[in-house]
Amino acid sequence: MYIVFEGIDGAGKSTQIQMLNEWLEANGFRVETLVEPTDSKVGKLIREILQRPDATTETVQKVLALLFAADRMLIMDKLNEESKIILSDRSFISSLAYQDNPEWVKVLNKYAKQPDLLLLLDLDVKTSVSRTSGEDTFENEETLTRVKQNYLELAKDYTHEIIDANNGVNKVSSDIKKAVAPHLGMCPDCIR
Amino acid sequence: MYIVFEGIDGAGKSTQIQMLNEWLEANGFRVETLVEPTDSKVGKLIREILQRPDATTETVQKVLALLFAADRMLIMDKLNEESKIILSDRSFISSLAYQDNPEWVKVLNKYAKQPDLLLLLDLDVKTSVSRTSGEDTFENEETLTRVKQNYLELAKDYTHEIIDANNGVNKVSSDIKKAVAPHLGMCPDCIR
Repeated sequence: MYIVFEGIDGAGKSTQIQMLNEWLEANGFRVETLVEPTDSKVGKLIREILQRPDATTETVQKVLALLFAADRMLIMDKLNEESKIILSDRSFISSLAYQDNPEWVKVLNKYAKQPDLLLLLDLDVKTSVSRTSGEDTFENEETLTRVKQNYLELAKDYTHEIIDANNGVNKVSSDIKKAVAPHLGMCPDCIR
Repeated sequence: MYIVFEGIDGAGKSTQIQMLNEWLEANGFRVETLVEPTDSKVGKLIREILQRPDATTETVQKVLALLFAADRMLIMDKLNEESKIILSDRSFISSLAYQDNPEWVKVLNKYAKQPDLLLLLDLDVKTSVSRTSGEDTFENEETLTRVKQNYLELAKDYTHEIIDANNGVNKVSSDIKKAVAPHLGMCPDCIR
């Protein structure tokens, strides 16, 4: 089962993946976590390019869109392992939400694995800015507002749960468990 | 002016580019040559992946198609320099000719620079095999026959000249000069 965490920076994706991972393993599930970009050579190149001063130019954005699609093609076999729950920090849905050219990006990612469940950690833009100030080049309020809106629209195309990420870490974690449980045949009301 | 050399391996592209380069410079033109994959980090990664034993699998072919498109996006600014003649060893037309999935590959390369002139060095498949035996993983007769045919079809979409690459090096070079000359406002019959 391929569960994808999406949301703007500061929404707490990595923390929540860690917490859900521990809880699922304590409940006897085999879990694997991954992050996009991955630690493949393509993924490393993406991280490098994201640090460049010209990372936001149109040409480099297109290069990044192609590299992200290549990077996730490289983990295809892993994503198709049916015997595990894969918790992924981002997916091709990030590319669709962040890129200016969603129709083209959709075709690039034509062969990307579709999530069995999308968990959208929905965060207020102002909170995102205050939590992540100065971390990378994509964090101005205008961009984040557009991306947040894109995410809410895109979510409709997939089996999804929208989680209010403005709450405290433990409340968000509990909401995620309740949202995930029925998809795994667990009883959502039994979750502490 | 962006002049692209295409053709199956062994057609003599690199030798002919060198010869045309010298001749054009001797005639006062500013020339730059380039090779795909380039020497960028993406290009280096492509060369590395091409050496892998799984290079011909469907997944890795798709990864390569994405990386090739990214690599040529990175040289976009260079290709648009109007004051020079760019002689390129391969282009997105190679991706179209070699990949199994031409419609998808076409979209990946949607923003690639169109050649002002395509020089297709057309070589017999048997000659290609004997000239390049054992060099890389794409050289069986069946594949080469398909690629050669794809090239002849694709050429129709661009301003092109088809050069018989079965001849000796000097004859091919002379045919190329005669083909290129009118595109540069030179007299083809004056060429030695």
